Amino acid sequence: MYNIALFGAGRIGQVHAVNIAEHKETSLYSVIDPYQEGANSLAEKYGAKVQSVQEAMADPNVHGVLIASATDTHAELIEMAAKAGKTIFCEKPVHLDIERVRECLATVKEYNVPLFVGFNRRYDPQFRKVREMLSAGAIGQAESLIITSRDPSPPPANYVKVSGGMFRDMTIHDFDMARFIMGEDPVSVYAQGSNMVDPEIGQAGDIDTAFIVMKFPSGAMATISNSRRSGYGYDQRIELHGAKGLLTAKNMLEDQVEKWGEAGCVAAKPEHFFLQRYNAAYKAEWNHFVDVLAGRAAPECSGYDGEQALRLADMAFESLATGKEIKL
Amino acid sequence: MYNIALFGAGRIGQVHAVNIAEHKETSLYSVIDPYQEGANSLAEKYGAKVQSVQEAMADPNVHGVLIASATDTHAELIEMAAKAGKTIFCEKPVHLDIERVRECLATVKEYNVPLFVGFNRRYDPQFRKVREMLSAGAIGQAESLIITSRDPSPPPANYVKVSGGMFRDMTIHDFDMARFIMGEDPVSVYAQGSNMVDPEIGQAGDIDTAFIVMKFPSGAMATISNSRRSGYGYDQRIELHGAKGLLTAKNMLEDQVEKWGEAGCVAAKPEHFFLQRYNAAYKAEWNHFVDVLAGRAAPECSGYDGEQALRLADMAFESLATGKEIKL
Amino acid sequence: MYNIALFGAGRIGQVHAVNIAEHKETSLYSVIDPYQEGANSLAEKYGAKVQSVQEAMADPNVHGVLIASATDTHAELIEMAAKAGKTIFCEKPVHLDIERVRECLATVKEYNVPLFVGFNRRYDPQFRKVREMLSAGAIGQAESLIITSRDPSPPPANYVKVSGGMFRDMTIHDFDMARFIMGEDPVSVYAQGSNMVDPEIGQAGDIDTAFIVMKFPSGAMATISNSRRSGYGYDQRIELHGAKGLLTAKNMLEDQVEKWGEAGCVAAKPEHFFLQRYNAAYKAEWNHFVDVLAGRAAPECSGYDGEQALRLADMAFESLATGKEIKL
Amino acid sequence: MYNIALFGAGRIGQVHAVNIAEHKETSLYSVIDPYQEGANSLAEKYGAKVQSVQEAMADPNVHGVLIASATDTHAELIEMAAKAGKTIFCEKPVHLDIERVRECLATVKEYNVPLFVGFNRRYDPQFRKVREMLSAGAIGQAESLIITSRDPSPPPANYVKVSGGMFRDMTIHDFDMARFIMGEDPVSVYAQGSNMVDPEIGQAGDIDTAFIVMKFPSGAMATISNSRRSGYGYDQRIELHGAKGLLTAKNMLEDQVEKWGEAGCVAAKPEHFFLQRYNAAYKAEWNHFVDVLAGRAAPECSGYDGEQALRLADMAFESLATGKEIKL
Repeated sequence: MYNIALFGAGRIGQVHAVNIAEHKETSLYSVIDPYQEGANSLAEKYGAKVQSVQEAMADPNVHGVLIASATDTHAELIEMAAKAGKTIFCEKPVHLDIERVRECLATVKEYNVPLFVGFNRRYDPQFRKVREMLSAGAIGQAESLIITSRDPSPPPANYVKVSGGMFRDMTIHDFDMARFIMGEDPVSVYAQGSNMVDPEIGQAGDIDTAFIVMKFPSGAMATISNSRRSGYGYDQRIELHGAKGLLTAKNMLEDQVEKWGEAGCVAAKPEHFFLQRYNAAYKAEWNHFVDVLAGRAAPECSGYDGEQALRLADMAFESLATGKEIKL
Repeated sequence: MYNIALFGAGRIGQVHAVNIAEHKETSLYSVIDPYQEGANSLAEKYGAKVQSVQEAMADPNVHGVLIASATDTHAELIEMAAKAGKTIFCEKPVHLDIERVRECLATVKEYNVPLFVGFNRRYDPQFRKVREMLSAGAIGQAESLIITSRDPSPPPANYVKVSGGMFRDMTIHDFDMARFIMGEDPVSVYAQGSNMVDPEIGQAGDIDTAFIVMKFPSGAMATISNSRRSGYGYDQRIELHGAKGLLTAKNMLEDQVEKWGEAGCVAAKPEHFFLQRYNAAYKAEWNHFVDVLAGRAAPECSGYDGEQALRLADMAFESLATGKEIKL
Repeated sequence: MYNIALFGAGRIGQVHAVNIAEHKETSLYSVIDPYQEGANSLAEKYGAKVQSVQEAMADPNVHGVLIASATDTHAELIEMAAKAGKTIFCEKPVHLDIERVRECLATVKEYNVPLFVGFNRRYDPQFRKVREMLSAGAIGQAESLIITSRDPSPPPANYVKVSGGMFRDMTIHDFDMARFIMGEDPVSVYAQGSNMVDPEIGQAGDIDTAFIVMKFPSGAMATISNSRRSGYGYDQRIELHGAKGLLTAKNMLEDQVEKWGEAGCVAAKPEHFFLQRYNAAYKAEWNHFVDVLAGRAAPECSGYDGEQALRLADMAFESLATGKEIKL
Repeated sequence: MYNIALFGAGRIGQVHAVNIAEHKETSLYSVIDPYQEGANSLAEKYGAKVQSVQEAMADPNVHGVLIASATDTHAELIEMAAKAGKTIFCEKPVHLDIERVRECLATVKEYNVPLFVGFNRRYDPQFRKVREMLSAGAIGQAESLIITSRDPSPPPANYVKVSGGMFRDMTIHDFDMARFIMGEDPVSVYAQGSNMVDPEIGQAGDIDTAFIVMKFPSGAMATISNSRRSGYGYDQRIELHGAKGLLTAKNMLEDQVEKWGEAGCVAAKPEHFFLQRYNAAYKAEWNHFVDVLAGRAAPECSGYDGEQALRLADMAFESLATGKEIKL
């Protein structure tokens, strides 16, 4: 049984807490959160301790750490955990500044601990099946990838200010998805964006609607379609065109009931947001991390992957500012 | 070029007129209808003559007759045409009384003319593909057939009174479809029905909602689900379950546009009624009849088929009255 | 925290064990199974005791019993639990003999304990939404219900011999579904059936393919389409036609990935069998039973419901034998 | 009755010939084609004359001209027809060189004749419904448009050499669609492309796979996804995201038959190519042109529209060459 120290008792920390507790090889050992009430409440629910950062890092009973705290604490916590020899699961991103990311990854390398970066969508059964079917030759060589990623409704403008901007906060998942599906790093990135959804997001210096185009060494291309607001739930789809056909992963709907009447056929919306849609992905991701803890697997999604996705986000912002495609 | 005399200038006669005129081997030679204005108008549109019944039957330039007149005139017109040696296309049914049907078919046999009975749905590309896939072994042996046939809205009660009742007027198409798909005649029929849609239909002594169950010599079974009113357009579907899987022919929708919003996904209704849904079927049916005219084919859908479908309708009424399945 | 004694450590008992253990108001207190290894293994997994029937019934720490043992033990265990004052959850059916069911229910009534009969499909979110939309007037008055229920593959003929026959073993769920959706008891039942799937099932005196037609006091009708083998997974659908339109609950598919190529579009099959499809239903059913345990609700699905579904199965066999619709 | 002179008896000329002949206000008066056999054959079929270019232009009985000849003859024929006072229908493009287009349009303006440029997809019932629903406010303000346009298989490399390149030959339809749906001209264009499908296309100096991103004055954006080969028929879809939801026009499939079996659900491909998919569009387009002939309407799709679409194609090539978005 591996004991896990969970940093961050918020929404995403709670999702992980369930999976840690349900997995037969892991138990939630402690919760660490500067907001004490949150930490207490979550710890009590699962019979875990409340610890300080220092206590958790120093505790030899802690085998793995799950970092789901505020973004600006990730890099430092990773470094502390690396020095303490813990196996590390960190929610994306490692840091919003790529130099800081590289510094942090150097420390991880120095202390030689496994680091898994939580790009949960790689574990979505839909997207994974597309990746596997591509590998199995179902559509021949990949040629065009279209990633649709639209949130149900925009975050508060306050959040936007500290988020690193849409490309680093939201599109970063799609950059990683493009790399995951295509199995190669792009050679160029172009981005176009607008502030269409909420004027306050524009006043905060960010965009909320975007198209990104990437080109890969093979000649294949990918486009990402983003919006902070869909009006019909969480829109998470991919289309992968290859030499012999198309693979498409459609949305999961809230239910399978249809009503046919004078107004036509009315069916359900896509599942509301990431907690619903990626529920299975969070579980599968944790299963993989337990394999890492147990030495049965190396992290499929590493610090390098985290760095590359951030680098693409940086390039997208540069493209947006200059009107040019940015080459690597 | 085969000259066609068209009996009946109503809605269904007009559908056939288009197909006769467009086919490169046929021309609309004359129109016969007791309602002179209708006959004149249709004849003028296609440069055809207006004739009386006797003129048309006696006219050596008429190669084929298309009988789309009132139901109670079909049998007599068939007999006159048979005696005149014309090739005959008759809309279903031959007659509402099965003894009269048999008498009429005997005359056709005596004069040895080809008679095609217009069960148009056999020519629907959807249903025909199901039949062809079954024949090609796509799902192994047929086991269960489910026919859904629901009109968009009920006919006037006045019509119901002269229609022969729902089973002879509407379900007769589904009885034929069951025979067409299964390729065998049923050995038993059970019917259950209700008057749910329009009380005047009940007062006219008929039902408007029904389920029918048939069993075939192979052990396979079929059910028919009927209603005079769907509330969402013309619902025409089949499901055919076999030893290795299912074939299903879905509705044709009015368009392929979807709207996704807070209320879910709204798509189009099925095409409104038979003129829209079976447009391609009417054309394909006419192509077959031209092959019959030209001696390239025997009628795929014969007087015998017309008789059998009516016989099943009669049995369904007997079952409804007695609460028993009727065996052949 | 309510302590639950689980009778039966087989496949369905294991499904319930998970839900009992995960619910915050219940714990798996003991497991009872004549197959000791199965009982030990399940008990160990959840930290539960192994008990004998007598021990469990006499144990004042047991608040509720979940009867998922062999069908022929249900009635006796219910009676013992009733006499011991336990709150009872019993998998369907209470017994295969309706007189024995009535006797058993009389005992339950005498001892005045709550009895929930586990027709799990009532808790499927798809079917429940159809029921709720009907109640909310979405399609006006119900007119025609079509229930499709096809297993992925047939059970062994040995099982068939002790199952009470397809109508009592499999269709019983569909009879209950018809009553649940329509909210009234039928006034007549007709059944037609065949042995198409496995000759050994026929040799065991049973059928494996059936159509059933029921009529309700309102004039509405229902049909059930059954097969012991679909060839494409577990086919569980309903269509409910009303005065203003259609509600349809479609299958849950294994995934949402499509492949488009020369052969057309290939999508996933329905979820394999009841453990997958009704996973959410089993959880929701247990939530309801906990409300019963806590006195917050009366059993929504009672001994009476169990008796009525069995009665319809008996009538279906009588109809099959006589070729008549059976009236109540 | 308006007499039409048809320039070009090839594949697209033949499509128009049917519609001209079937329309009750037009007749196919003459066919002009340097390939005499083609002209003779088409003329004979519809009882039309064969004329030379000069004869047709000088013939006072010719009311309208339909230019479906080789691309490099369009501009000159338009100018001759304008000088002869004919009402003009010209297949896209007016010319591959934008200066020549402008010169030609100046002549049309000088002689003040109506010129309709045949962007047939504007008349596709799917896309038109999307445009109309947007106008009716169904999804609020337009924000993101995604146009998918993929041919079933690539043209011969020989054709590619004279086609003006993929953007001027194929994408030009999509540029027009973007302008049609959005109702405004873009302010910037970015294009990325590859030669993935056929090496000979690359050797001919062209691409066969592309993504284009446009931005509009309102801040809305559009992307176009193109390929010369889909592997699954003609893929013609649009998605339009707005402030309140999404409108999507899906492909028309070859049929509505599905086969469910061990391999999942197999459905039909999209209709094969433009002759099938845009059959209804060609008819509706002709209806509009007859309104123009009759003075009941001005051309909805004018020389200006033809010029703008070509200009966007030119900009796309410039973007592809420079790696920059091109601003207007």
